[in-house]
Amino acid sequence: MSLTFYSSAMSTATITELVLEELAVHCERIRIDLKKGETRTPEFLRLNPNGKVPVLVHDGTAIWESAAITLYLGELFGVAKGLYPQPGPERGEAMKWVVWSNVTLGDAFGRWIRNTSDWVPAEQHNAKAAEAAQSDTRNCLRILEEALAGRQYLLAGYSLADTHLNSFVDWLRYMKMDFSDYPHVEAWSRRCAARPAYARVMAHASGVG
Amino acid sequence: MSLTFYSSAMSTATITELVLEELAVHCERIRIDLKKGETRTPEFLRLNPNGKVPVLVHDGTAIWESAAITLYLGELFGVAKGLYPQPGPERGEAMKWVVWSNVTLGDAFGRWIRNTSDWVPAEQHNAKAAEAAQSDTRNCLRILEEALAGRQYLLAGYSLADTHLNSFVDWLRYMKMDFSDYPHVEAWSRRCAARPAYARVMAHASGVG
Repeated sequence: MSLTFYSSAMSTATITELVLEELAVHCERIRIDLKKGETRTPEFLRLNPNGKVPVLVHDGTAIWESAAITLYLGELFGVAKGLYPQPGPERGEAMKWVVWSNVTLGDAFGRWIRNTSDWVPAEQHNAKAAEAAQSDTRNCLRILEEALAGRQYLLAGYSLADTHLNSFVDWLRYMKMDFSDYPHVEAWSRRCAARPAYARVMAHASGVG
Repeated sequence: MSLTFYSSAMSTATITELVLEELAVHCERIRIDLKKGETRTPEFLRLNPNGKVPVLVHDGTAIWESAAITLYLGELFGVAKGLYPQPGPERGEAMKWVVWSNVTLGDAFGRWIRNTSDWVPAEQHNAKAAEAAQSDTRNCLRILEEALAGRQYLLAGYSLADTHLNSFVDWLRYMKMDFSDYPHVEAWSRRCAARPAYARVMAHASGVG
């Protein structure tokens, strides 16, 4: 089996980095420099025509979209490691949280960034749309807060659904989101960050390790 | 086994409707009236705190997010029917297209709608953001056009990835997107629409059947 992972710092490829570290799956790692335009080369666009990381190439087949990659690695390697459920309703719950991270939370949060951040031209910003997006993001956190009440993790035990969704919460924290209204989310996120795999990836990401 | 499907007309629940029809899976169907606020009742919010359809309840577990539901039904019922690949790289391709529909195409198209449509307050619109979103949507169609060149379907044969993604293309068509630059997408979409399951769902949706 051959597995190659294309990643870059400060991108959603960190999610896949965390998932691979939890699974302890051996793969070749290729670091892509976004600033040098390395996702825009003809070679890279043949792997992912969207020009984005993460990309996972498994036995010659390129798989993109971080949510698809988490679900893919989960079913292939996660069940044996107790990090992803067998097919059936509990796996459905894992799928729903992983997809929700990118689709519903990602949409709300993405609109917030698009309407406020420097990396989108200011002429595309709209203050009212930013307010609505922030309110939608807070609604997502409220949903997560209620889902985590009285629970340690999203499913019965720690799973790749936690790895995946917590990486979005990390991103919200980086953007200075205030979590004081979401104590269960905060406590859960600390539990996720206490995983040895998380510490190893973050040490590597910050250049410490 | 018990399976209950909550849907409503003119929503992403149509995707799940098409998937269930292809799979010929027996389930109880509950029609939700969005205009009457039926996704906002305490009973419905217990099933899906996001207040949205589709929702699939399998043996008491509620699964939401249309992409998660397609992947879930695919692995449980689609493999035996030849509509979803076994675990492995080809399944990874199915996952990548299903997730891409909701995350990347859905994001571009969603921003286009949010910046132009009546269902978002006009004070949140931004003409430059609408232009950028339309350009991103066209880029998605170009990616799909290239992926379909010389192929009948996304994978080796018709699969639930086609069912799922074509439902987004239907939505773009409904929004008057011009497809003349995307002849492979057009031809593929016609092949998808020629499926008997598609005709049965559309006849039902329009009140003809």
